[in-house]
Amino acid sequence: MRIAVIGAGALGLYYGAMLQRAGNEVRFLLRRDHEAITTRGLTVTSPSGDFHLDSVAGYREPAAMGEVDLVLVGLKTFANARLVELVRPLMRGDTAVLTLQNGLGNEEHLAEAFGAGRVLGGVAFLCSNRGEPGTVHHLGQGPIRLGEFAGGLSERALAIAEMFNAAGVRCEAVADLAKARWEKLAWNIPFNGLTALTALPTDRLLAHASTRREIVSLMAEVIGAANAQGLSAPIDADSFIARMLELTEPMGDYHPSMMLDRLEGRPLELEAIYGIPLRMAAEKGVEMVRVRMLRALLEAGEKR
Amino acid sequence: MRIAVIGAGALGLYYGAMLQRAGNEVRFLLRRDHEAITTRGLTVTSPSGDFHLDSVAGYREPAAMGEVDLVLVGLKTFANARLVELVRPLMRGDTAVLTLQNGLGNEEHLAEAFGAGRVLGGVAFLCSNRGEPGTVHHLGQGPIRLGEFAGGLSERALAIAEMFNAAGVRCEAVADLAKARWEKLAWNIPFNGLTALTALPTDRLLAHASTRREIVSLMAEVIGAANAQGLSAPIDADSFIARMLELTEPMGDYHPSMMLDRLEGRPLELEAIYGIPLRMAAEKGVEMVRVRMLRALLEAGEKR
Repeated sequence: MRIAVIGAGALGLYYGAMLQRAGNEVRFLLRRDHEAITTRGLTVTSPSGDFHLDSVAGYREPAAMGEVDLVLVGLKTFANARLVELVRPLMRGDTAVLTLQNGLGNEEHLAEAFGAGRVLGGVAFLCSNRGEPGTVHHLGQGPIRLGEFAGGLSERALAIAEMFNAAGVRCEAVADLAKARWEKLAWNIPFNGLTALTALPTDRLLAHASTRREIVSLMAEVIGAANAQGLSAPIDADSFIARMLELTEPMGDYHPSMMLDRLEGRPLELEAIYGIPLRMAAEKGVEMVRVRMLRALLEAGEKR
Repeated sequence: MRIAVIGAGALGLYYGAMLQRAGNEVRFLLRRDHEAITTRGLTVTSPSGDFHLDSVAGYREPAAMGEVDLVLVGLKTFANARLVELVRPLMRGDTAVLTLQNGLGNEEHLAEAFGAGRVLGGVAFLCSNRGEPGTVHHLGQGPIRLGEFAGGLSERALAIAEMFNAAGVRCEAVADLAKARWEKLAWNIPFNGLTALTALPTDRLLAHASTRREIVSLMAEVIGAANAQGLSAPIDADSFIARMLELTEPMGDYHPSMMLDRLEGRPLELEAIYGIPLRMAAEKGVEMVRVRMLRALLEAGEKR
């Protein structure tokens, strides 16, 4: 499959590299790492084995990349104002676009521009970060869960999931993308925000009784809002929260993306992870009190 | 009146200096500023006129200070483990002790050691901070409101209030100290915590719609808990909150004590301002959701 990766941060570089290693033709839109990667290739370090791709197709402009079968979007959501213009040159009649971006609202941008039938979304439980230019460190992962923005389980979604699995990235196609998105939010909302705000990694927050309790309360608020959205089946708060904590404990002193964004002085993905979910909750009459406060505190930090 | 000031931070130094200037005999327990103040005196800068006290009685140990008529306590509450031992040498049979410390629980410490009948408490709306050793900067103030820990309006409380007024410090004796304490908490809980957490001063927090809304919501939570405590009369949330915001706006880029404590690496007064109020609310069946989250975030910052 011919794949374009737009937004080659830690997520885009890692998945793109895995897909290329498995024999797909992958083209990367690069900025910071363009020179390093096009001249020296791309290195992935990983607990499941390091590898190096000698020859990587890196581009500075999407217009130069040509049309592809699949566009994989890993752009930071605070750059979403440019999302459509970056993707448009890659689209021919049957090109699908899969956004693995954080939070809510990304599929809607793409659907408005290209039609809902072209758009898939997915959530990635991935621990990775960028090292020096040309290197991405993969630390661990759960599966990608992807599905059609329009809903339902399509042949196309199953084929893309199969492609990831064949490349060594566990992936599951789901019929209810919205549910997968809200489940991911139930992790992102507490852990991204609290780590960014306190500069403490996930294990430190879980180790203190008071912050652990807030994590649980925040997750419960998000699940309450999720279950008001008319999902295919409600999320069971107790068992879901227990599983999320179990998954997070072994991640050790993990620094989520929003914590790294704050520490490195980048803007935070507040609209996708907090703003839109708060509005969607409010539209269903659900007030997420703690989430709103966390958002206000994170916003205040952007204005220092 | 012979007065001992225990805890000569910005509050203790300012009130002690005002009382000495008005003719009282004031003895200061000093640590950081001992040498500067005993050799060069104490300077107060203030919008209502700077002044300098040439001769100030500074002590390093309370045992050397002798017995007094009134002990004025301005100690940071995180040092409360030492409160009773610092005050004890100053007490003769009829010595009164007035704590102007932040939060809840301070009068209880003193009452347990010396009897409830010796203890008064007060809340001070004071903007002041310490400058170089021997200097305190007074920026503005509202009145002190003080009263008997045992409740009721006493001759003694009226006399102490009169002494402050005669010294140029507006002061009112109140019959319901608990109410005055909770009203002060309704300011301290949002502004101390949010400025400490975000490193943004009060005016910046009020200028952003999202943090302003959290300030209002936090105040409403505290008032809800206060009104569950059996005060002499309930606090009217709407008018009280409007008045607090009106009072705070003209304070400009004010840095509350907890923000300074955090910026300067001191411990925060979390137990007096958050821990005890949360427990007292819970004992009345009131859950302060936002206050609890704020406390958890502030605690997390202490553990970095």
